[in-house]
Amino acid sequence: MSIQQTLEKILRQVKEGIHPSDLVDLVDELTDAQKKELFELLSDEEAALIIQEMEEFDRVSLIRLLTGHRASAILKEMAVDDAADLLRELPPELTRELLSLIEEEAEEIRGLLKYREDTAGGIMTTDFISLPEDIPVEEAIIRLREVAPEAEIIYYVYVVDEQTRLSGVLSLRDLIAAQDGTLLREIMYRNVISVPTDMDQEEVARVVARYDLLAVPVVDEEQRLLGIITVDDILDVIEEEATEDIYRLAGTGEVEGVNILDASVFGLARRRFPWLVISLLGGLLSGSVIGVFEATLQSIVLLAVFIPVIMGMGGNVGTQSSTLFVRGLATGEIKSRDVWSYLFREVKVGLAMGLANGVIIALAGLLWKGIPVLGLPNGLIIGLAVGLAMFLTITLAAIIGTMVPAIFNYYGVDPAISAGPFVTTIQDVIGLLIYFYTASMFLNYLT
Amino acid sequence: MSIQQTLEKILRQVKEGIHPSDLVDLVDELTDAQKKELFELLSDEEAALIIQEMEEFDRVSLIRLLTGHRASAILKEMAVDDAADLLRELPPELTRELLSLIEEEAEEIRGLLKYREDTAGGIMTTDFISLPEDIPVEEAIIRLREVAPEAEIIYYVYVVDEQTRLSGVLSLRDLIAAQDGTLLREIMYRNVISVPTDMDQEEVARVVARYDLLAVPVVDEEQRLLGIITVDDILDVIEEEATEDIYRLAGTGEVEGVNILDASVFGLARRRFPWLVISLLGGLLSGSVIGVFEATLQSIVLLAVFIPVIMGMGGNVGTQSSTLFVRGLATGEIKSRDVWSYLFREVKVGLAMGLANGVIIALAGLLWKGIPVLGLPNGLIIGLAVGLAMFLTITLAAIIGTMVPAIFNYYGVDPAISAGPFVTTIQDVIGLLIYFYTASMFLNYLT
Repeated sequence: MSIQQTLEKILRQVKEGIHPSDLVDLVDELTDAQKKELFELLSDEEAALIIQEMEEFDRVSLIRLLTGHRASAILKEMAVDDAADLLRELPPELTRELLSLIEEEAEEIRGLLKYREDTAGGIMTTDFISLPEDIPVEEAIIRLREVAPEAEIIYYVYVVDEQTRLSGVLSLRDLIAAQDGTLLREIMYRNVISVPTDMDQEEVARVVARYDLLAVPVVDEEQRLLGIITVDDILDVIEEEATEDIYRLAGTGEVEGVNILDASVFGLARRRFPWLVISLLGGLLSGSVIGVFEATLQSIVLLAVFIPVIMGMGGNVGTQSSTLFVRGLATGEIKSRDVWSYLFREVKVGLAMGLANGVIIALAGLLWKGIPVLGLPNGLIIGLAVGLAMFLTITLAAIIGTMVPAIFNYYGVDPAISAGPFVTTIQDVIGLLIYFYTASMFLNYLT
Repeated sequence: MSIQQTLEKILRQVKEGIHPSDLVDLVDELTDAQKKELFELLSDEEAALIIQEMEEFDRVSLIRLLTGHRASAILKEMAVDDAADLLRELPPELTRELLSLIEEEAEEIRGLLKYREDTAGGIMTTDFISLPEDIPVEEAIIRLREVAPEAEIIYYVYVVDEQTRLSGVLSLRDLIAAQDGTLLREIMYRNVISVPTDMDQEEVARVVARYDLLAVPVVDEEQRLLGIITVDDILDVIEEEATEDIYRLAGTGEVEGVNILDASVFGLARRRFPWLVISLLGGLLSGSVIGVFEATLQSIVLLAVFIPVIMGMGGNVGTQSSTLFVRGLATGEIKSRDVWSYLFREVKVGLAMGLANGVIIALAGLLWKGIPVLGLPNGLIIGLAVGLAMFLTITLAAIIGTMVPAIFNYYGVDPAISAGPFVTTIQDVIGLLIYFYTASMFLNYLT
């Protein structure tokens, strides 16, 4: 399909009212000049619908292609929270310029920009419906009919008192099922679940998932209703937080706000580099352990053969343990008070796995390298040394893999950060120390 | 708080109408006998509400505490999809026994049990609202008022033709905003997004997130409406799939259907064991590479000092690359057609990181171990050998870390499985081969 045909196809589909999500992939294929051409042909409203569905990175670069006037006209048509999210990503001068052109909605958007991006305030919208306590259901339904096309979600109706403090909530279903003449205050649910503006978005997601909500209200310290967060934004938060955890667990650094396919080679390398430096220093530290035991190694070079398996197994068990623990904390399956009992169980799992693998590697040491190279008595000693080292390394790996993230968590640092190169490095150093120490002890018995 | 007090607190809170999610933690603290006592004091409906919020594992063990009659009475009060989910976890004989006691709803539940657990059919509910095309909005609203307390969600109204084929959808908001007298067919949205019964739940979640839906209809091959999937279940799916990916990336095996805190030590060790065996065999393979170069190592034992850093860095870069790639595929940021261009970019990132780290390690080899131990000319050679090996290892790690999951993905195997011990093992072997091969080449120049 030529680019001209793509452009025509997009315009045709826009006019046919296709869902804007389905257009984004097509728009991505256009060059900057063609994107500009396309957006000049679209109405402000059509442009806003498409931009809302685009990835953060693509959205920002698109806005910068347009004139300030056009950009602000499109922003005006966007949902307030989406407009604020977009402006947050732009350079401050451009944000100020666009806000000055938007006029009417600017105040509302500025209000949202105050909040940190990853908090309840940062993801809420101010397009919500609130009604006073003392009107009857039929009047509520009439008011809803008026505002329906404007509000972000009308399935929950929030009820406020005279000071706009959140006093209750009704689902549209309650309203429709109620008898005419009933006042809202009589049927509203009073124990409203709400979140403060500064609650972390991950926490907000947990609240929404726990209570199966379609939206959650955001309030200030005086319980005044400031906005709502809808479940579609929560889906994005859960996805985003899982990605963040996965990246941290693997030690790849943050790649937030960048399309991974468009990011520069240098930018990506730079993000991954700090983790590699930790790993590099750790590797040199492990190397210096080997350096200390150089004389031992000199007398039996064969010992080097088991270095990879000791390091690899310790690293793997450590990664398993920290991953299970970190994810358990993130999903709430493991609570802070469970940490000690969890650790105790993990020690037992480590002992079991250490025993099984210790026996296997002892046999490997004995039959594969020990007896053929060193003869029966010395082969037995090598087998025992390697097996014991493996047993101790694996057991300790399970403990360290759990303890390190637990300590990070205790001090309020995201435990996912600790679980990558950090745990592996500690584990490598300890594994090698155990191995060479055990080996040099046993070597005294060699004949 | 004594157990008796906990029991009383729960009962009091149930009567006060507290959200059942908030009770689950309290219930968890009770012993089996006390749980039995508590559930004998609750009505079927109260019991159903609490059980619906419990974790799979806890739910199953609770049901087995109750008599068949009581359990079936509670199942009858649960949402059809939750009842089916619960029965899926029970032994077949018990499921059959309970279904025979349920009578009325049994047919509906049996219908749901046909579908695989992790497909659209397996997570849908049959409590939905469908209306014929040719009734006016005011009649639709009256009908909604009648069924409101029963249906799972009334915010979308599905419109069906005479053959119960899905022909359109209306949001409750459209219905409320429409003029009286308008027929549903005139205002309904005809391009309904629906999913087939056998679509994988991860795919369903992507559809719901992409189009910001509150629910998605499930249809058979003839487009007949069979059920709906609501967004609260989608939240759970996204969380579940992210956990699955994280576990696979770390090579911890599946821990599905088990509460990690209650699982047996042996059970957990057994799940993690297969990955450790891969790692063990990989470690022995790496060891045999060292064995092949035993003579080289014998002549300069110093070479062993750089084994950990070469292995560690290769492993880390490989993990970074496969994690970024696997997560990119899972979130849809990287599409199948992008694989080659992504790989090409990753090669460049690998070259950049390899160059930087190669220079650092060459300097370390030169200044830390080379010159002090071997003198200036030989020190330079060691530095060069170690630096070159590091450069090649990191570059290859980036390529292998991307290629291996890409190949798994091409053959329809979850790429997350490949990214753990599998990539690390291949990487270790190749890294050591490169290192010793480079070193033994350079050693010829030693004076």
